[in-house]
Amino acid sequence: MKKIPPPSVRRLCKIYSLLDEIEKTGDISISSKEIGRRIGVPSHSIRKDISYLKKGGGIGAGYDIKELKNHINSAFGFDVVRNACIVGIGKLGTTLLNYKDLLTQNFKIVAGFDSSINRLETVKTDIPLYPTYELPEIIKREKIELAVLTVPGRSAKKMADNLINYGIKGIVNFSPIVLSNRVKDVFITNFDIAGEFRFLSAMFAANTSIKNHNDL
Amino acid sequence: MKKIPPPSVRRLCKIYSLLDEIEKTGDISISSKEIGRRIGVPSHSIRKDISYLKKGGGIGAGYDIKELKNHINSAFGFDVVRNACIVGIGKLGTTLLNYKDLLTQNFKIVAGFDSSINRLETVKTDIPLYPTYELPEIIKREKIELAVLTVPGRSAKKMADNLINYGIKGIVNFSPIVLSNRVKDVFITNFDIAGEFRFLSAMFAANTSIKNHNDL
Repeated sequence: MKKIPPPSVRRLCKIYSLLDEIEKTGDISISSKEIGRRIGVPSHSIRKDISYLKKGGGIGAGYDIKELKNHINSAFGFDVVRNACIVGIGKLGTTLLNYKDLLTQNFKIVAGFDSSINRLETVKTDIPLYPTYELPEIIKREKIELAVLTVPGRSAKKMADNLINYGIKGIVNFSPIVLSNRVKDVFITNFDIAGEFRFLSAMFAANTSIKNHNDL
Repeated sequence: MKKIPPPSVRRLCKIYSLLDEIEKTGDISISSKEIGRRIGVPSHSIRKDISYLKKGGGIGAGYDIKELKNHINSAFGFDVVRNACIVGIGKLGTTLLNYKDLLTQNFKIVAGFDSSINRLETVKTDIPLYPTYELPEIIKREKIELAVLTVPGRSAKKMADNLINYGIKGIVNFSPIVLSNRVKDVFITNFDIAGEFRFLSAMFAANTSIKNHNDL
């Protein structure tokens, strides 16, 4: 497969989510113009993104939804299931632990970790929980590649460094601290929920004319 | 106050979150260089962002943390409490309803809505819950300005349109559909958790050299 630029990877993921939704309504094809309108991107970018796939599934006036989904699926290995763990079993960690719909089919949460043994005993879940000092052993034994980080901000940086040392290849960071770790072959994605709410509030006060900050 | 460009608003929000964390460790001042390192932005951008505030609180080698927080606070009205509601009381909606730490102090969730009356009866919370058809009345009565949208993707677009018609000024969209509504004076922020996980997975497969997609 050709190397796909990261912004195209991101858009193709959005296209995949969109196709997933549209398929449920019973539609069988969609034009690049309509995809672009729904994603908020010009249609020529959409066609360019899809051209990175071996085959886009274009037919006549539009793309066959099922076919295009399959192409994105196989390009990005969405059919590969990767083992993941949740580090920090507070309120958000517990929700994610039990919220299977939130994750995609290609992530399987196989373990949860918390530094407080008391807390581990109170959480109800089918997923095995361990104290954090067992991280290196369990990551190895369970072949865990990804970690969802839901620890407090003050512990986030150190814990991320540890996880990378233990062999974790991808981190979804939900802590309020932005992690900009540039360790080779490790992907980090930052999710700051409180920060997003704060940004929304600031946009009110700053009286700017931007309507959708995803364009920024 | 001078009009602050949206990317600076976003960075100042991140700076605020960072200061909040650092303050807890007992530090009283911080340099623009250190802020930049932690946020992942050059220090001259940090100084430029802070220059938009009336006073940045710069002293000697760095910024006084408490003072800088206060300046950002008053510039963005973080001391104003805005009423918010949660629309869609599924698993994620319920978590957000009861997860006060997730929100900032300047958002107060005053109501929850769901189209299923059966579901409303089973959710345990101190916050009043209503069927969605009461949205127009309750938004008006409770002076609700913001909505957290946790409905399924298929209902998101229509519900967002309705909320805007009912007078909502800001939407935090957690549904899997990206909303790009450009109604005047309405801010929409999109949070696609499943999509972020999918992106992380795609980045593995696409074998790109980017380590932190927040730079994209």
